[in-house]
Amino acid sequence: MRTPALILDVAKVKRNCVRMRERLDAQAVALRPHVKTAKNIEVARLALGADRGPITVSTLREAEYFIEQGFTDILYAVGIAPAKLERVAELVRAGTLMSVIVDSVDAARAVAAANSLLAGERRIRALIEIDSDGHRAGIRPGDGRLTAVARALDGALEGVMTHAGDSYNCATVDAIRVVAARERDAVVASANALQAEGFPCPTVSVGSTPTATFADSFEGVTEVRVGVYVFQDLVMAGLGVCSLDDIAISVLGSVIGHQRDKNWLITDAGWMALSGDRGTARQKVDQGFGVVCDEVGRPIDDLIVSGANQEHGIVARRGGGPIDFDRFAIGSSLRILPNHACATAAQYDHYEVFEGGKRVARWERANGW
Amino acid sequence: MRTPALILDVAKVKRNCVRMRERLDAQAVALRPHVKTAKNIEVARLALGADRGPITVSTLREAEYFIEQGFTDILYAVGIAPAKLERVAELVRAGTLMSVIVDSVDAARAVAAANSLLAGERRIRALIEIDSDGHRAGIRPGDGRLTAVARALDGALEGVMTHAGDSYNCATVDAIRVVAARERDAVVASANALQAEGFPCPTVSVGSTPTATFADSFEGVTEVRVGVYVFQDLVMAGLGVCSLDDIAISVLGSVIGHQRDKNWLITDAGWMALSGDRGTARQKVDQGFGVVCDEVGRPIDDLIVSGANQEHGIVARRGGGPIDFDRFAIGSSLRILPNHACATAAQYDHYEVFEGGKRVARWERANGW
Repeated sequence: MRTPALILDVAKVKRNCVRMRERLDAQAVALRPHVKTAKNIEVARLALGADRGPITVSTLREAEYFIEQGFTDILYAVGIAPAKLERVAELVRAGTLMSVIVDSVDAARAVAAANSLLAGERRIRALIEIDSDGHRAGIRPGDGRLTAVARALDGALEGVMTHAGDSYNCATVDAIRVVAARERDAVVASANALQAEGFPCPTVSVGSTPTATFADSFEGVTEVRVGVYVFQDLVMAGLGVCSLDDIAISVLGSVIGHQRDKNWLITDAGWMALSGDRGTARQKVDQGFGVVCDEVGRPIDDLIVSGANQEHGIVARRGGGPIDFDRFAIGSSLRILPNHACATAAQYDHYEVFEGGKRVARWERANGW
Repeated sequence: MRTPALILDVAKVKRNCVRMRERLDAQAVALRPHVKTAKNIEVARLALGADRGPITVSTLREAEYFIEQGFTDILYAVGIAPAKLERVAELVRAGTLMSVIVDSVDAARAVAAANSLLAGERRIRALIEIDSDGHRAGIRPGDGRLTAVARALDGALEGVMTHAGDSYNCATVDAIRVVAARERDAVVASANALQAEGFPCPTVSVGSTPTATFADSFEGVTEVRVGVYVFQDLVMAGLGVCSLDDIAISVLGSVIGHQRDKNWLITDAGWMALSGDRGTARQKVDQGFGVVCDEVGRPIDDLIVSGANQEHGIVARRGGGPIDFDRFAIGSSLRILPNHACATAAQYDHYEVFEGGKRVARWERANGW
């Protein structure tokens, strides 16, 4: 196979998907998978355990791709830019249930204005984004702007949502549980506040793979948005969310050089193949640009990609010890587990899909915006 | 225009290209532009100042794309993986002058074996990669393996090449000049050593934008490979290679939120739009994920992208002072200068080309492998 290539192990994707579905089923909370990680129809179907269902997207390109595949219930979970509402309205006119998110009166007014141009019953729906941990966007729980935004939506309000991005920075599973409780509390309190003021708030949405994996309770929450769990990655493994063996994508590279005096292998998998993501740099174990495995995906003791140029990867032993160069002939293959599955997969337009050790399919990605 | 989008300012590309051509012309050394930065035919033509000419590529996909456009002289400047030689041989059979690079006897033997299957006069040519600064691949000057590799090439030897990647880590222009001299000395000495042993070595190739910009001499060098100069970027500006005004690509984003208590703007240009490259993190001035400019490309005092999630950028003032939120209404546009042009451009499949403040074209990129 040509290298570099993005390998998808379908058995692992299935296992990750079943595990998350079983967990959320047991907690009696709905799943709205975030398809931004795989941007692919087959993976979305494995996530849902069904041909279609509610999904979360990160771009309108993803929305359009999944609508072409028959999907009808889509949350676009990036604060809406007013200029994008015309494109959203087009999807609503064509029959899709489209929800957008807002955290300001100005954005809410733009949604109301777009809705005023839509005929009949069809409306763009909006969730108000709540800031549960200060890491990015949203309105803090208790902030008086919540009511003003709800009012400005002029009937488009569908509910509240948050994303506990801070869960990625936790040092322990207990810390993730604390973030998860804060995530839940923030949206449930905000939903209650809106309902107390007479705004119906049927949807209460949370989501991040770490909090969904470890939350003690989803009481008051109606849906969970999770993305990276379908593939898992080294950042998730570093958080205790998964094991290395759960990581379902890897980059196949070729050894192209030996630097014996430095104890380096040179491969053709640089940052173009791996992405520049260094998510494990802030974790207890820094995995460089990725963990090096043999051709069938078993990690090789202490080998990581310690440096990356555009089309060159430098493989070294974490501890600095000698590499057994005879084991890695020029032209031999390696597989590299990614720091961040969303970022690594984004470097490719398709997956090489493996099942039972054999290549069985090529699955496309809906990249771009 | 839809955001995020990748904007190319064609006047700046032209200026950067003319400047490099004039410099190398004055030094009487040939230019073999590295098309890995733009991966686009129109930019390559601007770089060459001609419809076609010799180029350097980082993938065989680029080679095939440029051959489709009529290019006939291509150096694939990543150590060759033996399995790729069949694809290279196919291009040679079809009439392209293809050169590959090797730094081991094993790779050299693979080239010789591939050539033994080629009929007539056509041959895959090879340059031996010299390690001039210890940053990646190649044979150190003076290493006895040089002769062994030349011999194993069995007549395919075309010359020597090196890339002074260490120039990216220099703190001063004087330091770049030192690296440039080392780069030149390493290949010239290696070429001389080969010639002394009876191996003809017509090509002596160096290349990196910083060393090409500041080298005191190219004596003994026959060609210069440079890539990022066509666009320039914040890393180059930090090195003193260019000014911010020379940076020819930027990412157009929309303001999607205000976090007034944190003094943040939220935009729809996250790492997917900017790449995760943090090349300025190791420079004197850390530019975060990019320098924020107004809609026409003028930097706005001290605003940088301080954080990035997949589709969210966090814009803050470097010094931490207050942002004038009234200036950045929800929906307003910003342009962001990239840390690393190669990485940011790689996140897109095309450029939105601007000239005289107007969008004049859409130029494609040959991504993938």
